[in-house]
Amino acid sequence: MVEPKAADELLRTLVLFLDLAGTFAFALSGATAGIRRQLDLFGVLVLSFAAATSGGIARDLLIGAVPPAALIDWRYLTVSVAAGLLCFFWSSLIERLRNPVRMLDALGLALFAVAGTQKALAFGLSPVMAALLGMLTGIGGGVARDVLLSEIPGVLRAELYAVAALVGAGIVVIGHLLDLPIVATAIVGGVACFGLRMMAIRRGWRLPIARGSHPPSRPDSR
Amino acid sequence: MVEPKAADELLRTLVLFLDLAGTFAFALSGATAGIRRQLDLFGVLVLSFAAATSGGIARDLLIGAVPPAALIDWRYLTVSVAAGLLCFFWSSLIERLRNPVRMLDALGLALFAVAGTQKALAFGLSPVMAALLGMLTGIGGGVARDVLLSEIPGVLRAELYAVAALVGAGIVVIGHLLDLPIVATAIVGGVACFGLRMMAIRRGWRLPIARGSHPPSRPDSR
Amino acid sequence: MVEPKAADELLRTLVLFLDLAGTFAFALSGATAGIRRQLDLFGVLVLSFAAATSGGIARDLLIGAVPPAALIDWRYLTVSVAAGLLCFFWSSLIERLRNPVRMLDALGLALFAVAGTQKALAFGLSPVMAALLGMLTGIGGGVARDVLLSEIPGVLRAELYAVAALVGAGIVVIGHLLDLPIVATAIVGGVACFGLRMMAIRRGWRLPIARGSHPPSRPDSR
Repeated sequence: MVEPKAADELLRTLVLFLDLAGTFAFALSGATAGIRRQLDLFGVLVLSFAAATSGGIARDLLIGAVPPAALIDWRYLTVSVAAGLLCFFWSSLIERLRNPVRMLDALGLALFAVAGTQKALAFGLSPVMAALLGMLTGIGGGVARDVLLSEIPGVLRAELYAVAALVGAGIVVIGHLLDLPIVATAIVGGVACFGLRMMAIRRGWRLPIARGSHPPSRPDSR
Repeated sequence: MVEPKAADELLRTLVLFLDLAGTFAFALSGATAGIRRQLDLFGVLVLSFAAATSGGIARDLLIGAVPPAALIDWRYLTVSVAAGLLCFFWSSLIERLRNPVRMLDALGLALFAVAGTQKALAFGLSPVMAALLGMLTGIGGGVARDVLLSEIPGVLRAELYAVAALVGAGIVVIGHLLDLPIVATAIVGGVACFGLRMMAIRRGWRLPIARGSHPPSRPDSR
Repeated sequence: MVEPKAADELLRTLVLFLDLAGTFAFALSGATAGIRRQLDLFGVLVLSFAAATSGGIARDLLIGAVPPAALIDWRYLTVSVAAGLLCFFWSSLIERLRNPVRMLDALGLALFAVAGTQKALAFGLSPVMAALLGMLTGIGGGVARDVLLSEIPGVLRAELYAVAALVGAGIVVIGHLLDLPIVATAIVGGVACFGLRMMAIRRGWRLPIARGSHPPSRPDSR
């Protein structure tokens, strides 16, 4: 059993590392989507930053941690811009690397869901809501990216996307309730989320669509 | 005249009840829209929760009541998920029940506009802004629902939708300024909003569109 | 050198004036876009207010200044509604006045970027983040306007839009770091932003698009 203070220090370092790694992965996904829709250099960088930080910013606004971490710590901005520039100038490469990008996206999802849940718990939210906010941290960036590109968020119909985030977040919450070591539950939660998401992509696992639902005759009619 | 403390208690109970009933109605509208656009089960539940709570969450963020009530009180989540599951597994039923769903939506609008105004007043906002935040509480969920489905929010062109919310909110504010009993003005405001919205649907009442405006030749061109 | 208190007073007056002038310009742009998409009167007013205040509201939420200035000071609402009504009843006029409206939009961008940066600095954000929040204040309204109309925000691919805002914000930040007089740097920053934006429109200056990017075969496919 580690000392409370050391555990606290460890938690903070862990959360920061997870946040930055996830930021990079999500910024790549945002930049790639922006390039595909022919945004200019600045639009691509904005989308990188939005995809990378919107989930965490939404979480921070909701738990009252203002200004959000993404606006205090310059590293989030730096990492996002670096990922955006990388994609922008190597776009043909990234376009061909579709599978690695999807893997990075799954990695970002896992890292953010776990880190987001940790932070929500640290701010005293109830276990269920902490798991929900962890999921939001994971999927928020992708939702912002898709809304900015005027598309229905893929997370709302992709293969087990949000569910994978929720599973990872749920494991962290259960570990917290059982007083298990923080690092261990973070790793287990992250691996579970990542594994589930990758399996869903590979095997095409999907959640059901409502029986009787059918495409609208005119998509834009209300 | 009731005692201040009893009035406070009454206000709190009233606000909670209105919030939960409105939550259910709006979650149904979100789930229905999500099913129509073929979201998967999780997407439908996310849309239920978003449609049910986005207005209240936006209001709470704006008045500084964080974490928002929808993230503290587990009942909002439970009610939203229940409505989403109901729609999902009975979607063919709900699709046929178009009129009741529109009525529930009108009910949610009325309940949220009134409850939202009450809460904004309780947080010390000026009467005009409290009415505006009441309206936002009422229409915010529908706006979030439509934005997530990549549609222009119906509230911006539907039959007297936001106006009905504003009338209800305005009555609550006027009652507050005149020191009238809280429950009475809440009921009058809610009934006025609901009645106006239902009449607008039945009779096709609309606000004017600007003369000289015409449909864009290509909707997506900029 | 002015006295600290007088400088403070001056800063506050300057920020208020810039905010209101920018509000009017942006509300016009919101109303014009709403009329073009055939929103009803209320939708047009909502869009006026959203386009005028979303950037500032986002900034205020992010720096923890709640309730946001746009909800405390009735003047923002009044100015937005006035601009919306003006556009609505004179829409044919405004439609023909395309160039002045774009100039007003550029003016709003410059005013908001400068005022937003000032406020973020006053709330103790780091120089880089203050410049970013100034840019957000400038472009946030346009982003909200376009998202509500289900379009990809023009700012993400328009001619040097966000970059102009960032240049203006950057000048304010540099002036702050060098302890230069506030009014002078605000004017220089605003003029630089406005001039750059106008030149970009006139000469069609654009940022590059990634080599190898191409329009998606089906825009709505995921």
